[in-house]
Amino acid sequence: MIDERFGLSRHVTLPGPLRLDGGALLAPVEIAYETYGTLAPDGGNAVLVCHALTGDQHVASPHPRTGKPGWWSRLVGEGKPVDPARDFIVCANVLGSCMGSSGPSTINPATGHPFAMAFPVITIRDMVRAQAMLLDHLGVGVLRAVVGGSMGGMQALSWPATFPDRVRAAVVIASTARHTAQNIAFHEVGRQAVMADPKWRGGDYRDDPPAAGLSVARMAAHITYLSEAGLTEKFGRKLQARDAKGFGFDADFQVESYLRHQGLSFVDRFDANSYLYITRAMDYFDLAEEHGGLLANAFRATAARFCLVSFDTDWLYPTIESRHIVHALNAAGRAVSFVELSSPYGHDAFLLDAPEMNRVVDGFLKAVA
Amino acid sequence: MIDERFGLSRHVTLPGPLRLDGGALLAPVEIAYETYGTLAPDGGNAVLVCHALTGDQHVASPHPRTGKPGWWSRLVGEGKPVDPARDFIVCANVLGSCMGSSGPSTINPATGHPFAMAFPVITIRDMVRAQAMLLDHLGVGVLRAVVGGSMGGMQALSWPATFPDRVRAAVVIASTARHTAQNIAFHEVGRQAVMADPKWRGGDYRDDPPAAGLSVARMAAHITYLSEAGLTEKFGRKLQARDAKGFGFDADFQVESYLRHQGLSFVDRFDANSYLYITRAMDYFDLAEEHGGLLANAFRATAARFCLVSFDTDWLYPTIESRHIVHALNAAGRAVSFVELSSPYGHDAFLLDAPEMNRVVDGFLKAVA
Repeated sequence: MIDERFGLSRHVTLPGPLRLDGGALLAPVEIAYETYGTLAPDGGNAVLVCHALTGDQHVASPHPRTGKPGWWSRLVGEGKPVDPARDFIVCANVLGSCMGSSGPSTINPATGHPFAMAFPVITIRDMVRAQAMLLDHLGVGVLRAVVGGSMGGMQALSWPATFPDRVRAAVVIASTARHTAQNIAFHEVGRQAVMADPKWRGGDYRDDPPAAGLSVARMAAHITYLSEAGLTEKFGRKLQARDAKGFGFDADFQVESYLRHQGLSFVDRFDANSYLYITRAMDYFDLAEEHGGLLANAFRATAARFCLVSFDTDWLYPTIESRHIVHALNAAGRAVSFVELSSPYGHDAFLLDAPEMNRVVDGFLKAVA
Repeated sequence: MIDERFGLSRHVTLPGPLRLDGGALLAPVEIAYETYGTLAPDGGNAVLVCHALTGDQHVASPHPRTGKPGWWSRLVGEGKPVDPARDFIVCANVLGSCMGSSGPSTINPATGHPFAMAFPVITIRDMVRAQAMLLDHLGVGVLRAVVGGSMGGMQALSWPATFPDRVRAAVVIASTARHTAQNIAFHEVGRQAVMADPKWRGGDYRDDPPAAGLSVARMAAHITYLSEAGLTEKFGRKLQARDAKGFGFDADFQVESYLRHQGLSFVDRFDANSYLYITRAMDYFDLAEEHGGLLANAFRATAARFCLVSFDTDWLYPTIESRHIVHALNAAGRAVSFVELSSPYGHDAFLLDAPEMNRVVDGFLKAVA
């Protein structure tokens, strides 16, 4: 007997086919997911939580391999704004990822090896369509809410735009309705770092992955998740385990040592090809473009209510991107509440202890009928 | 007979030794430099121009190999604020670089191969000390002015701090008195990209350089030279030579194509080990630390006048860093003029057409006795 409070790690193979934005048909569609709580008899208490670039389905329960707490256990869990005592909570690994859902590391039955770069390029909307297939499978018709931060927020935005009648509320945190040139530029640096590693071998690396390239990609990305002020407060120019500069190329400064650690530990938990595919999906994301070039059009067909949260030191998806969405929601006549919160932690703030964010999300979700 | 108006590309081997901040003695000291104009009989018209990370000595005359105009020919040249008709202009390739001055690509006479990582780690102050040796050689006692942008600005700040009696004015553009944690973090990503390239071979790459790694390093750095608004204005989400997204990993977006070009063209003109050494020198730069932890102390011994210019969209060395210097100059009782200019181009603005910057520098230099 499994105690559902601690989450169920599940995997389903759906027959599909799923028609992707790029034109390919994906079949079957594998989805790894967790659920918390119980679906109400009327099916009205389902909440979908969407994860970010390198996230996973273990939102509120320990990661089965690392044992670390769920990545959003501050927001999701008993007594938290998204509460399994009230909600049936679903979190699925996104299409293209490497935690059990279909992606480039899925084994191609025809060859016995991973699909690698033969896997079709996917979009945020494709991820959302796969989630809808999972909800069909679970017997969930309409979501009480969809909640996500960063790339999870892109999915939370894409949900009411793609399935206007299947979601009553969307919570979009530290996110954006489109990737800017600078966002694309940083991701392209990461992709080039991976693909420049000779071990990448056109994606066909099998058991000897391009760890050095992926590590550099993660280091570059990690800088964009932190604020300049936060880095200064945490590290400044402090030296690492030494009294004076070493006049060499070891990690003299704590910030260097920290970044190297971030890069190296990342390669143990993430697949290099998935990094390429998911960053590509994010770069392709432009919700306005999918709706005739006008963002408001994305929200005309839905009656969902929206809650947007941004952080003042987030320079990856700064507040102006949230304001842009709010203006479009206003133009479409949708109900939206928006708040910019103050935090020293930059983009990462949404994953850290953020009691104000919790209060905002809690109040919003309680008001959703 | 060489027309000095068009610059003289020169090279000198000075016996040294030069004692470096890291403790090593450098001997001999090779310096590649250009001069424009003629030194006045009283020696009072010398202006030293200092270049940035990947710059060179060809400040106001075509690059001998590429044929491109001098990198600061908008500011330096006949009729410009720094004018060879009035000034004796000197620009020297910095120590650690690869345009003819001593650096890791200098041939070690003992082995017949480049010093590579056996070259000593250098600092901004070491670069300044080498410039002082060159000025001794040229018969220049006191500089009318030292002028630089970005890393050139660091040298311009370090000059009056290191040689208080040898400089009457310093022009510091788009620069900083110390590298922040974020500045160090971006450089560390670049260094790791170079060193992760198997072709780097511990620096001993000879004729087969780590081009892929250096290219990624340049791409990451290049993003920090441009503003988000500038990137959006120039590229936005425009596609590259295609009507629709390719659903692959080629450069779909113009900004990707642009960045790849920046990376690839850089490896043709710059040495990977020099990139390591000069970024290290910049990361080590903390003028306050060299003067008991108080920046004002760096300026107490000099009578030089200062001119600082920042750009409002420069997020690499933002205006607050210039203000920090201005406050220290005020505390030290120095004369300083400071202006923040508006530009859409981010850090790169100082190298582009900036008529306001030219007016500010022109007015300041004319007022220097």
